[in-house]
Amino acid sequence: MSSRTEIATLGEFGLIDHLTRNNEIRNASTVVSVGDDAAVLDHFGKQIVVTTDLLIEGVHFDLVYTPLTHLGYKAVIVNLSDVYAMNATPTQVTVSIGISNRFSVEALEEFYEGVYAACQKYNVDLVGGDTTTSNKGFIISVTAIGEVTENRFVKRDGARKGDLLCVSGDLGAAYLGLLLMEREKKIFLESPSVQPDLEEQDYILRRLLKPEARKDIVEFLEKNDIQPTSMMDISDGLSSEILHICKQSNAGCVLYEDKLPIAEQSREFAFKLELDPTACALSGGEDYELLFTIDQKEHDKIVLNEQISVIGYITGPDEGAHIITRSGKKHAITAQGWNAFKQ
Amino acid sequence: MSSRTEIATLGEFGLIDHLTRNNEIRNASTVVSVGDDAAVLDHFGKQIVVTTDLLIEGVHFDLVYTPLTHLGYKAVIVNLSDVYAMNATPTQVTVSIGISNRFSVEALEEFYEGVYAACQKYNVDLVGGDTTTSNKGFIISVTAIGEVTENRFVKRDGARKGDLLCVSGDLGAAYLGLLLMEREKKIFLESPSVQPDLEEQDYILRRLLKPEARKDIVEFLEKNDIQPTSMMDISDGLSSEILHICKQSNAGCVLYEDKLPIAEQSREFAFKLELDPTACALSGGEDYELLFTIDQKEHDKIVLNEQISVIGYITGPDEGAHIITRSGKKHAITAQGWNAFKQ
Repeated sequence: MSSRTEIATLGEFGLIDHLTRNNEIRNASTVVSVGDDAAVLDHFGKQIVVTTDLLIEGVHFDLVYTPLTHLGYKAVIVNLSDVYAMNATPTQVTVSIGISNRFSVEALEEFYEGVYAACQKYNVDLVGGDTTTSNKGFIISVTAIGEVTENRFVKRDGARKGDLLCVSGDLGAAYLGLLLMEREKKIFLESPSVQPDLEEQDYILRRLLKPEARKDIVEFLEKNDIQPTSMMDISDGLSSEILHICKQSNAGCVLYEDKLPIAEQSREFAFKLELDPTACALSGGEDYELLFTIDQKEHDKIVLNEQISVIGYITGPDEGAHIITRSGKKHAITAQGWNAFKQ
Repeated sequence: MSSRTEIATLGEFGLIDHLTRNNEIRNASTVVSVGDDAAVLDHFGKQIVVTTDLLIEGVHFDLVYTPLTHLGYKAVIVNLSDVYAMNATPTQVTVSIGISNRFSVEALEEFYEGVYAACQKYNVDLVGGDTTTSNKGFIISVTAIGEVTENRFVKRDGARKGDLLCVSGDLGAAYLGLLLMEREKKIFLESPSVQPDLEEQDYILRRLLKPEARKDIVEFLEKNDIQPTSMMDISDGLSSEILHICKQSNAGCVLYEDKLPIAEQSREFAFKLELDPTACALSGGEDYELLFTIDQKEHDKIVLNEQISVIGYITGPDEGAHIITRSGKKHAITAQGWNAFKQ
């Protein structure tokens, strides 16, 4: 090769853009391709969505503090979350695993127990996969398939000036759960006899280890006949995802610090670590909440749902993406989201 | 954990059976689930197939002698082959990769060049994927989706007594290509200055590094209105696959050594290594040919296609699976196919 470009210079999203810039579509059945939470395929006039995730031990999870059952559950959930983020209903998953001989059959049974629990809870069928050896570590690849009523799927590019910016649940908890587990791991490695101090941290731990996908929100939107103008799930952090929506919708936005939903336990643990809870909510990943925009006329319907917070609104593209702090100051939003290629 | 069962005691297929034994189906849209080349989903009355493969550096490929372009091509092909093995036509793929910082952007461009070349040749759209870091090595996960005319999909369980056993193309070449590359790698590592001796080995090398999926066979079957009673692709070796069809169809079979299609170049290279070409054809993996059974009444149509060999016939389950050698001896067929969990 004549030249070498380090992947870190492009970043994850830059790399994907770069590698798919010449991607051509040949089949009429391909409605939405690379670049959203999931692809949309029109098979014979009806639409399905497809999404896939690759999870690698040491990069996406740490088996020192992740029970295998939870890992199996979460591996399915993160993909279902992408299906819901298209306003679709998941129906099938495939689960492939690469495992070294360090794992016993019993260990894999625990993993699959979690896979099946997620399938049962979300009414999804496990329909296939691949099982193979790895030289080192545990590798998981899940693909989820879902159905969506024709042309009711929601992409990231439809946010319009004046739309309300909404988010489900609360933010930052999974990231704080991760900090907690990293702290406990460090203590354990230094002094194995010390019992972990996880008291009153059950919420942030659960958010990290056993997240749920927001099926309820998609059902609420359908029941109330609300069609979001854009939607995605929050896996890399709120700021990062907001910037995706702004970029793909050619829009700006304003959000309000005092409107960000943060659970009391997250707030307390953030203070304990001398961290700003707002920074955790903006930049912490893996909450798997839904971020979406709706027309202002839907406001009265949305506020009926306590699980949805209106955190700001969409502006024109020239106004950029900003947050107004509690003290009334205005700051540009930067993507502090998780970047797999920077350490 | 109270006990530990080594994965090697179950083997790859035993492990899959074990882990999916309690798998429940909840969606009416799930027509065929775990246990075939691909799943079949009935979305709104029309059918699609889904299949997925996980490829791991050092387990499935060796970058010492695998050009990245070929690897990208092959990663797509092995999944398309599974779609054709369901008698379906592939329409979309997702490609996920896990990469360490050992890889440059240029290296990934080469990989994707191969992915796109396969997509173009087989008229398939790349619609998504996931790109992430790995601690070590290159990890590839591909999912392929295809369409099939309602209830024309072909599983592994429909072979009936008296059916003809057919195979496309020729067998054993990819395995011999692998032996050749392993030999050259060894020589290279011992004496880097020695030029590889690949003269006249282009066919077996191509079969290893740049396999094709048998689109032509599926098109031929459709054009001639032949509905196979069972079909699968040969990825783990002919014997292993024949035993799958016999087991799932509750049948036995007889095949004839002198009917096995083996390319002249494969035969010559096998002799050079003092190997039995028949053993290579039976046990060598990665040929990605189609193995299928048809009703005897289709015989006259099938023989018109030079790319299809009738290698034997299906018997009752009590007769087991056997091969009749050139010298007229009868041997039981054993699965010598590639087992990912035994070294």
